[in-house]
Amino acid sequence: MLNAVTIDGLWHHEKNHNYHFKWIHDSMADLHLLLDGRRLKAQARERRQAMQRILYEALRDAIAQGRLQAGAVLPSSRDLARDLAMARNGVIYAYEQLAAEGYVQPSRQGTVVAAFSAASSSVGQTRRRDQAASWPNAEVAQRVRHCNRRRTPEDDLRAFMPGMPALDAFPLRTWLRLCDRAARQGSTQDLGYRYAVGEPELRQAIATYLRVARGVRCHADQITMTDGTQHSLALCAQILADVGDTAWIEHPGYGGARTVLTQAGLTLQPVTVDAEGIAPPEDWWQSRPPRLIYITPSHQYPLGSVLSLPRRLHLIEQARRAGTWILEDDYDGEFRHDGPPLAAMQGQVADAPVVYLGTFSKSMFPALRLGFVVWPEALADRVMGVVGGLVLQGRPFEQRALAAFIDEGHFTRHLRRMRKLYAIRQAALREALQRHWPVPGQILGGQAGMHLVLSLPAADTALAQAAYQRGISPRPLSLYGTGGVAGFNGLVMGYANTHEDRMAKQVQTLVSAWQGL
Amino acid sequence: MLNAVTIDGLWHHEKNHNYHFKWIHDSMADLHLLLDGRRLKAQARERRQAMQRILYEALRDAIAQGRLQAGAVLPSSRDLARDLAMARNGVIYAYEQLAAEGYVQPSRQGTVVAAFSAASSSVGQTRRRDQAASWPNAEVAQRVRHCNRRRTPEDDLRAFMPGMPALDAFPLRTWLRLCDRAARQGSTQDLGYRYAVGEPELRQAIATYLRVARGVRCHADQITMTDGTQHSLALCAQILADVGDTAWIEHPGYGGARTVLTQAGLTLQPVTVDAEGIAPPEDWWQSRPPRLIYITPSHQYPLGSVLSLPRRLHLIEQARRAGTWILEDDYDGEFRHDGPPLAAMQGQVADAPVVYLGTFSKSMFPALRLGFVVWPEALADRVMGVVGGLVLQGRPFEQRALAAFIDEGHFTRHLRRMRKLYAIRQAALREALQRHWPVPGQILGGQAGMHLVLSLPAADTALAQAAYQRGISPRPLSLYGTGGVAGFNGLVMGYANTHEDRMAKQVQTLVSAWQGL
Repeated sequence: MLNAVTIDGLWHHEKNHNYHFKWIHDSMADLHLLLDGRRLKAQARERRQAMQRILYEALRDAIAQGRLQAGAVLPSSRDLARDLAMARNGVIYAYEQLAAEGYVQPSRQGTVVAAFSAASSSVGQTRRRDQAASWPNAEVAQRVRHCNRRRTPEDDLRAFMPGMPALDAFPLRTWLRLCDRAARQGSTQDLGYRYAVGEPELRQAIATYLRVARGVRCHADQITMTDGTQHSLALCAQILADVGDTAWIEHPGYGGARTVLTQAGLTLQPVTVDAEGIAPPEDWWQSRPPRLIYITPSHQYPLGSVLSLPRRLHLIEQARRAGTWILEDDYDGEFRHDGPPLAAMQGQVADAPVVYLGTFSKSMFPALRLGFVVWPEALADRVMGVVGGLVLQGRPFEQRALAAFIDEGHFTRHLRRMRKLYAIRQAALREALQRHWPVPGQILGGQAGMHLVLSLPAADTALAQAAYQRGISPRPLSLYGTGGVAGFNGLVMGYANTHEDRMAKQVQTLVSAWQGL
Repeated sequence: MLNAVTIDGLWHHEKNHNYHFKWIHDSMADLHLLLDGRRLKAQARERRQAMQRILYEALRDAIAQGRLQAGAVLPSSRDLARDLAMARNGVIYAYEQLAAEGYVQPSRQGTVVAAFSAASSSVGQTRRRDQAASWPNAEVAQRVRHCNRRRTPEDDLRAFMPGMPALDAFPLRTWLRLCDRAARQGSTQDLGYRYAVGEPELRQAIATYLRVARGVRCHADQITMTDGTQHSLALCAQILADVGDTAWIEHPGYGGARTVLTQAGLTLQPVTVDAEGIAPPEDWWQSRPPRLIYITPSHQYPLGSVLSLPRRLHLIEQARRAGTWILEDDYDGEFRHDGPPLAAMQGQVADAPVVYLGTFSKSMFPALRLGFVVWPEALADRVMGVVGGLVLQGRPFEQRALAAFIDEGHFTRHLRRMRKLYAIRQAALREALQRHWPVPGQILGGQAGMHLVLSLPAADTALAQAAYQRGISPRPLSLYGTGGVAGFNGLVMGYANTHEDRMAKQVQTLVSAWQGL
């Protein structure tokens, strides 16, 4: 054991050892503790670390914080090991580590604490938390200062959360079996960086599916994989538009798109949506020509309108003239309830200036994190090279499993089942609203997708908050609005992940939230 | 069968059917083919699609392309079904689909082709590929015009590719077993959107590991998961800096960081690296104060120098004064060859203005796509809310499997094995270079990591190209340079994924590439 006696800020080891440490006075109490062998061992046990590591850290902190001054000679490893009742190799480890990091230097006298500049040594002074908080830069950048969202996975599972598919109806066993098979058929050579554009099998499977099921005109070489629609949008903005370019977006519309396009440096121009979809004033093509137009033509998010054919063709024609790219987000186009799915806008006209964005978050499940972009044929080859410079891809086993899931028919089978299930759930929600909801208003949407909009005279945010407190998560329509345009009021109500038998009860909960306002 | 007779651009059906189509003259030939039942059936077989789909597409294209004019009355479903020898339900499907999409309208006369504006109908005219290519906007945005990279996974597996760990030494069976276990312990309720910051188990496992092995001062609440270091850097740039802010980067340095920080709108200031790491001129703190400094202090990429302790402390002190965040990229800090790993800069001083970036691409494998950011404590809570608004996370089973891989000791065991293996492979490369390499020069780096730098008098790009043609992939050092500062010449040679027994042969291949220049 090391027995320390302190005199006037100098600490001398008793007995016949020829070393001493010089300590700064106010840290003496710490240092008694610091080199007490029992204390160090207790720390090592508690933190499940080796003694050598604990010793190294204790010495390093003492040096960095100026408690052990430059020029001080450390005891020999043999002496210190004996005093601390630890293995000598452990002390050697600590000294070598300190030397490698520049805290000490070997010299003729032994191991000596290294000298730092005055500026440096003051760095180490212990700072209190309130000092840290007063750093001039202890705030996030302007461009994200409005962001503050702390939703948990559990919040997303509550009744009426929009955008959540029926998780318990997903064939998880089949999916895991295909993942397992893909992994077993793979090898360690698949573990490196993968194709930036995605695995060839998956791109091929998606192209075939899109041609048949969504009327998209494409081949696999136009497709690049992403982590989902937000990533797809970020790539589109980066690859197709420069900072300061204008993007038209739907109002009300998808907040995620707003965030991503703003972060990419674009100027957003909201375009109000009516019953036939987006309706830009004709003179805007001259007065605020867009580089990009972001739309959800199959099922406008959140209002649910379907972009009419004349508007589609007119938009394509104007975009072609203006050198604009239309970003078609087909997030839930598979789920049409009054007939087979509508064809995608991308395929309605040959060589349309349309970029098609697809996601497996709704058709499979959100945690999968796979989406894709179908680039226009005229640009596809060039884009592949750009994506190679911007994106790092991996996850070959999952991508191949998804390709098999599509190719072997599980995907269309699952979609068919979900289309039926969502129709049942929508009907249950409509019926429950008609029976229990006391406020005059409209139910919008419902031809397709996974949500309805319940229009309200006002106070949608207050109602959504009250509902949340009662355990359900409809979202206020005004949240989907874009600053500078008159707001909408209502609730966006997802029904896909809420069981039809519980729909009436959940609507009654909403009614009681309304009555409690 | 439908027998068609054409007269003057009008197509009349023979016999007693009371309908007719009006066709634009020049597309007559197409339309004979279009509604020939045998032809449609052949198409259906060939494309493996239902007849109803083929019929729908044929009619849709004819309408969109103006070959079938507004006001034309389609045959009754009964008649057309008989003529095409297909089921009547199939014709009804096609008509309903066309009606839903706005191509036709039901009327008293039957199903009538809808009217479009003149502008719209001209859209449908068939365009040739060269017309498409002449679109004014058929080019990518300015900001990505320099990007063009078409590397395949196979390229990355060649000898000497930097940044590639020893894939065949990865314990894939163990990993897959843990993934399988995590999936089986999970449920469909895990398939929704997950915590934006990552799974709690994994963040906890990482925090514990970092404290012990890397000397990072952190707890789990400071950690957010990402897809890898490029994603981490993009988040840091977005969250900590605004457009136009200055970032100091190492020269030569990591090209991926350059790309990401530029895309985030930052102004880059290259800082030349010497044997002790980054060395910014003192007056730059006034003349070009940075918002961010991106560095690789444990093992400078690519030169391999270790940032000295005085420079670390000085940098921290100056950054604190200037309100600068230091981004510490610890990409391969685990693999130190002349002693235990050096502590991370983040932990050297309490409350340092350092953001620590870690990745599992080297310590596990690149295709995993998992990395993380350790945010400064003073900012952590605020950042969690911002990340919640910017990031969508999933993949809970993989994240939990990684947590188990760390917690159950597989991770440190694998790192220990790789440290030994990489030391052997580095020694083999050094020996082979000393024996076979004919050009006077230096070997830089090697205290840590997975690559060496072989300095060259000139022509590194030409040599790297010649080497690539012979099947090996060392990378030219000049590629790591930043415009505006004098270049470096040499080869960055990864050794981690090249077997020690093949090292001499691969170096001889490099020699022959040099001799063939």
